[in-house]
Amino acid sequence: MTSTSPFTDIGAVINAIIADIKATQTTQTTRPGAVIYIPPGHYPLLTTMVIDISYLQIKGAGHGFMSIGIRDGSNTSGWRETQPGASHISVVNSNTAAFVVQRAGDPGTNGRLNSIIFRDFCIDGLAFSPDYYVNGKVGISVSSDSGSGHYSDNDSLKIEGMGFVYLEHALVVQSADALTVTDNFITECGNAIELTNAGQACKVTNNSIGAGWIGFSIFAENHQGLLVSGNNIFPVGRSMVHLKNCSECAVSSNKFKSYYSGMITFEGACTENLIASNAFRRETIGGIAAPMVDDLFGLIHLAGDRNAITGNFFSIGLASGEVTPPGSNPTVVLVAAGVDNYLASNYLVSPGVPGKVVLDGSTTGTNVLYSARNSEFLAYGAPGTYTFQPTGG
Amino acid sequence: MTSTSPFTDIGAVINAIIADIKATQTTQTTRPGAVIYIPPGHYPLLTTMVIDISYLQIKGAGHGFMSIGIRDGSNTSGWRETQPGASHISVVNSNTAAFVVQRAGDPGTNGRLNSIIFRDFCIDGLAFSPDYYVNGKVGISVSSDSGSGHYSDNDSLKIEGMGFVYLEHALVVQSADALTVTDNFITECGNAIELTNAGQACKVTNNSIGAGWIGFSIFAENHQGLLVSGNNIFPVGRSMVHLKNCSECAVSSNKFKSYYSGMITFEGACTENLIASNAFRRETIGGIAAPMVDDLFGLIHLAGDRNAITGNFFSIGLASGEVTPPGSNPTVVLVAAGVDNYLASNYLVSPGVPGKVVLDGSTTGTNVLYSARNSEFLAYGAPGTYTFQPTGG
Amino acid sequence: MTSTSPFTDIGAVINAIIADIKATQTTQTTRPGAVIYIPPGHYPLLTTMVIDISYLQIKGAGHGFMSIGIRDGSNTSGWRETQPGASHISVVNSNTAAFVVQRAGDPGTNGRLNSIIFRDFCIDGLAFSPDYYVNGKVGISVSSDSGSGHYSDNDSLKIEGMGFVYLEHALVVQSADALTVTDNFITECGNAIELTNAGQACKVTNNSIGAGWIGFSIFAENHQGLLVSGNNIFPVGRSMVHLKNCSECAVSSNKFKSYYSGMITFEGACTENLIASNAFRRETIGGIAAPMVDDLFGLIHLAGDRNAITGNFFSIGLASGEVTPPGSNPTVVLVAAGVDNYLASNYLVSPGVPGKVVLDGSTTGTNVLYSARNSEFLAYGAPGTYTFQPTGG
Repeated sequence: MTSTSPFTDIGAVINAIIADIKATQTTQTTRPGAVIYIPPGHYPLLTTMVIDISYLQIKGAGHGFMSIGIRDGSNTSGWRETQPGASHISVVNSNTAAFVVQRAGDPGTNGRLNSIIFRDFCIDGLAFSPDYYVNGKVGISVSSDSGSGHYSDNDSLKIEGMGFVYLEHALVVQSADALTVTDNFITECGNAIELTNAGQACKVTNNSIGAGWIGFSIFAENHQGLLVSGNNIFPVGRSMVHLKNCSECAVSSNKFKSYYSGMITFEGACTENLIASNAFRRETIGGIAAPMVDDLFGLIHLAGDRNAITGNFFSIGLASGEVTPPGSNPTVVLVAAGVDNYLASNYLVSPGVPGKVVLDGSTTGTNVLYSARNSEFLAYGAPGTYTFQPTGG
Repeated sequence: MTSTSPFTDIGAVINAIIADIKATQTTQTTRPGAVIYIPPGHYPLLTTMVIDISYLQIKGAGHGFMSIGIRDGSNTSGWRETQPGASHISVVNSNTAAFVVQRAGDPGTNGRLNSIIFRDFCIDGLAFSPDYYVNGKVGISVSSDSGSGHYSDNDSLKIEGMGFVYLEHALVVQSADALTVTDNFITECGNAIELTNAGQACKVTNNSIGAGWIGFSIFAENHQGLLVSGNNIFPVGRSMVHLKNCSECAVSSNKFKSYYSGMITFEGACTENLIASNAFRRETIGGIAAPMVDDLFGLIHLAGDRNAITGNFFSIGLASGEVTPPGSNPTVVLVAAGVDNYLASNYLVSPGVPGKVVLDGSTTGTNVLYSARNSEFLAYGAPGTYTFQPTGG
Repeated sequence: MTSTSPFTDIGAVINAIIADIKATQTTQTTRPGAVIYIPPGHYPLLTTMVIDISYLQIKGAGHGFMSIGIRDGSNTSGWRETQPGASHISVVNSNTAAFVVQRAGDPGTNGRLNSIIFRDFCIDGLAFSPDYYVNGKVGISVSSDSGSGHYSDNDSLKIEGMGFVYLEHALVVQSADALTVTDNFITECGNAIELTNAGQACKVTNNSIGAGWIGFSIFAENHQGLLVSGNNIFPVGRSMVHLKNCSECAVSSNKFKSYYSGMITFEGACTENLIASNAFRRETIGGIAAPMVDDLFGLIHLAGDRNAITGNFFSIGLASGEVTPPGSNPTVVLVAAGVDNYLASNYLVSPGVPGKVVLDGSTTGTNVLYSARNSEFLAYGAPGTYTFQPTGG
C-alpha cells in the first residue's frame, strides 16, 4: 500500500499494487497475475514502474492520442482539450522509462516472463529536449537482466491498443519470443518499436506508426520469423523497417510513407527475408532534419543473400531538384551486397525524375523481373552476373 | 442527469452523461474523457447522440449481429432469439443517426476531435423502408461542421469490434486523419464504410463487411495513403471498394465476393494506388437488384494514372447466359483511362465463359504481364501503346 | 445458482450462470445475452460448459500462455510461476471439452447461434497422455446437432485474444458462417483451428499459432471464401493449412515455419484458392515425431483446378542428408493433380540441397512463371502440357 495519489505519481501507486500482488500470490502454482485498471484521467509519472511478474495486465480506457506536434505549433487558446487523454500517463522527468519489464537473473533458472499485457492507455513524453525527438524518455522497456545475453527472456507478451507520443523510445523489447504488437497508435516518437538483442516468431500487425527523423519506426535485431503486416506507417520524418542480422522475416501488406531514403534498410547479415505487397510513397517536405543518407542509398537498401521483393508499389513524388546528390536519379531499390536476391512484379513510378533499381557491382545472381523499365535499371556488375526482364513502356 | 430510462431512449441518456462529463471536466488540461459502458440489453434510440468531446469511449458487450435478412425471410416461431443482441441499440425513426460526432467551428481554432472510440456494441436499423437498403438511418456519422471544408477534422478515431445491421449508412467519417476501422462486423447495410470529403493515413483492416446492392462496402474520397487489408467482404449485393480521387492507397490481402461488376471502381483522378494479393470471386444469384453497370464495366474498373494490380486472383463463376450484354465476355479488369498502369502476376479463371482484361483505346503505357492469356486480352489501342506478356496454356 | 466454487469446478459455475440467464431472459425479443467475466485465477474444470444461447460473451483477463513444453523439460525449482495464468481454466479430465457450443435441432427451425464471443482467457489441457499431443481434451467445440448436417449453424462468432495450450483440439468450429478467429495465441496443442463440415466467409487473422506434430494448425473443410491472413504460424511440429474440398479461399501475408513437408496441403476437390505473399521456412530439428509424408510430398501439396500461388517466398534450410527419401531433392511445390494452376513470382531458395517445383504427369495447363530456375523445375508431363518461364541465375 502507498499513500501516494496517482495524480501525484502513478508509478509509485502501480509499484505498490504490484508489491501487493506479490505479497498475495505466494506459490509457484498460485500466481495468475492481475489486472491493474487505469481509469480515464491525467496521471504524472515520477517513478518507473517495474514489472517482474508474469500475466500482469495494465489496462486503460483508450489510446488517448493527441498530436502534440500540431498543438505546439498552434494557437490553442480556443481549443477544448490541450493534452492527450483517456488513461493518460505523462513521463515527467527526462531519461526515465514509464515501464520496465525485467526479471533478474537467468530465465532458465528463474523462469521467463510470460503473457504480460499492456492495453488501451496512453504514455506521453510531454516535450522533447534537448533536441527534437530527444528526451531520453521511454514508454515500455522490456529488457533482459544486464549481461544475461539470453535469447528469449520473455514469451507471448502483448502490446495492444496503446498510444505513445513524444517519447524518444516508445517500445523497446529485448529478447522477445512470440511477441504481439497490434492495434497501437505510436507516433511523434523518436523511435516507435525497437526489438533488440534477438527474437523469434514475433508479429507487428495492424498498427498506426510514425517515428520521427532520428530513429526507427520498426527496428529488429537478430530476429527470425518476424511478421510485419497490415501497418500504416506515416512518419513525420524517417520511416524505416530496419532489419539488422535478421532472417526469414516477412514485411507484407503495409502502407509506408516517408520523406527520406532508407525506408527499409538491411544491416549486417540479412538472409531470406520477404518484402511483399507493400505500397511505398516517397515525398519531400520542408522543416525536417537533413537526411542521414542521400537518395542513392535506396528507398529499399537491401544487403544480404537470398532475399525477395515481390508485388510492391514504389511511388516517388520528387522533382529533379529535390534529389541528392543534385542531378542524380533516386535509387528505389539498391541491392548493395549479396547473392541471389530476387525482385519480381514490383512497380516503380517516379514521374518527376526517373527512379532506378541499382545492383552494386559486388552482387551476383540477382533477378530483376518486371520491376524496372530499361531506363530504370542500372547494374554495375558484368552481364551474366544478374538476370533482368524489363517492364515495358 | 435525465430521468429517461435507457430502455425508453438510450440517446437521451447518453447525451445526459456527456453533458455531465462536460460539466465535470472544465479546463483545457483536465479533459481526459470517459468511458460510457452499455451493458447487454435492448435499447431503443429516439434521440441522436452527439459527441463533441475528445477521448470518449462508448463501449458495449459485443457486436451482437443477427442476420435480419434471414430472419425476415423465415418462420421464426420456434427461434429462441429474434433480435440482434449484446449491447443492442435500435434506431427507431427513419432518417436518424444513432451517433453524430461533430465539433462546431474551425478545428484549427477549436481543436480537432481526438481518439474517440466506439467498441463492441450493436447498432440496428430495424427495417428498410421505403425500399430495401433504404431507410435514411445512420449508425455513426463523423462530420465536419457544415461548410468548414477542413481537411482532417478528427484524428486517430477508432471503430472496433462493432456490429452494424440494417442501416442505410453504417459508418460515415468525413475528413479523417489516421482513422482505424478494425475488427468490425458490418453487414446487411445499404453502405458499410464511407470515408467522405478527404482523409489521410487511415486503415480499414480485419473487418467482416457486406453492404447491400444500393451502395458501397468501402467508399473513400480524396484519401491519401488509405490501407484496406485483411478484410473479408461478402455482400448480399454489390461489393465495392470505391476510390474517388484517391492516391497512394493500398488494397491488399482481402477476400472479396460479389454478384455484380465494379467490385473495385476508380472514379475521378486516382493515381498510384496498389491492389495486391486479393482474391476476388464473382457469381450471380437470383432475387437481387438489377446491376447498375453491365459486365463490360470490369470487375475492377480502373481509371487513372500509374496504378498497380499485382498478385491477385480473379475467379468468375458465370455461365455464358449470365453475362450482360448477352453474348459478351465479362471484363475482369478494364483499364478505362489513364497512362502507365501496371498489371502483373494476376490470375484470371473463368471456366464458364472466358473473361477478359481490356484496355480502352485511350490508354497508353499499360503493362499487362502474366495477367491474361492471349485469348483473354483485348486492347483497343494500337500496338506499341501497351506491353503484353501472355500467361500460357 | 450453484454452491460449487469456481476453484472446484468452473464448469458447474458457468453452467449455473447460463441457466440463470435463460431463466431471466424469457422471450424471443428479450434475449440480449450477457457477459460472464472470469477474473484472474486458476480454475479447474470438471464439467463441460454448454452454451446454447446467442450473444453470450465469456471474457477473461488475458491469454495467460506459458510454454508447458519448455516447463516440463526444465528444472523449475527456481521459477516464480509454473502454471499458465491470467484467467486460467484447466481441463482436468481426459476426453473432455471445456466448452461445447451447440443448439439442439434444425437451425432453420430453432434459429442459429449468433455472435457468441470468447475473449481473453486461457484454456489449458495440463498434460498429454497417452501420447504427446494426445489427451482427448478440447478447448472450444462449436458443433451442429448430431446428424443435422446443416451448412452454417452458427453465425458471426468471435474467438479473440484467447490462449490455448496442451489441448489435443484447441478450437473446433463446425458449420461456421462469418466466423472471426483473431488475435489468439494457440500453441502446443495437437490441433489448433479446425473448421469442420462446412463454412463460408470466415476469417482467421492476426493469430500466433503452433500446432503439434499430430495435427493441423488450420484445417478447413468444405469452406468457401475463408481468409487466412496476417498469422505467424510457428509450430513445434507440423505446420499446416490443410484445405479439404475448399474453394475461393485466400491464404495471404502469413509467416510459416515447419519441420515437415505439407505446410499447405490440398485434399479432395480444391478449386480457385489463392496463396499469396506468404513466407515459408522449412528446417529440421531433432526430437520430434517421424514425418507422415516424405520430402517429395511438397512443402505445398497442391491438387485441384485453377488455384494460384503468387509472390511467396520459400526458404529451405535442409542439408542433403536431411532429405527423405535419401538422395532426393525436396519438393517445394508439388502440383499433384488438376488443371490450370498458376504459380507466378515466387522465390525458392534452398542453398543446402536444391529444391524443386514438380508437376505431376497428370496435370495440364499449369503456368510456372518466374517461380523456379531451370534446375529447380521438373515436369513429368509432355512439353505443351504446361508453361514454364524460368527464374535466371
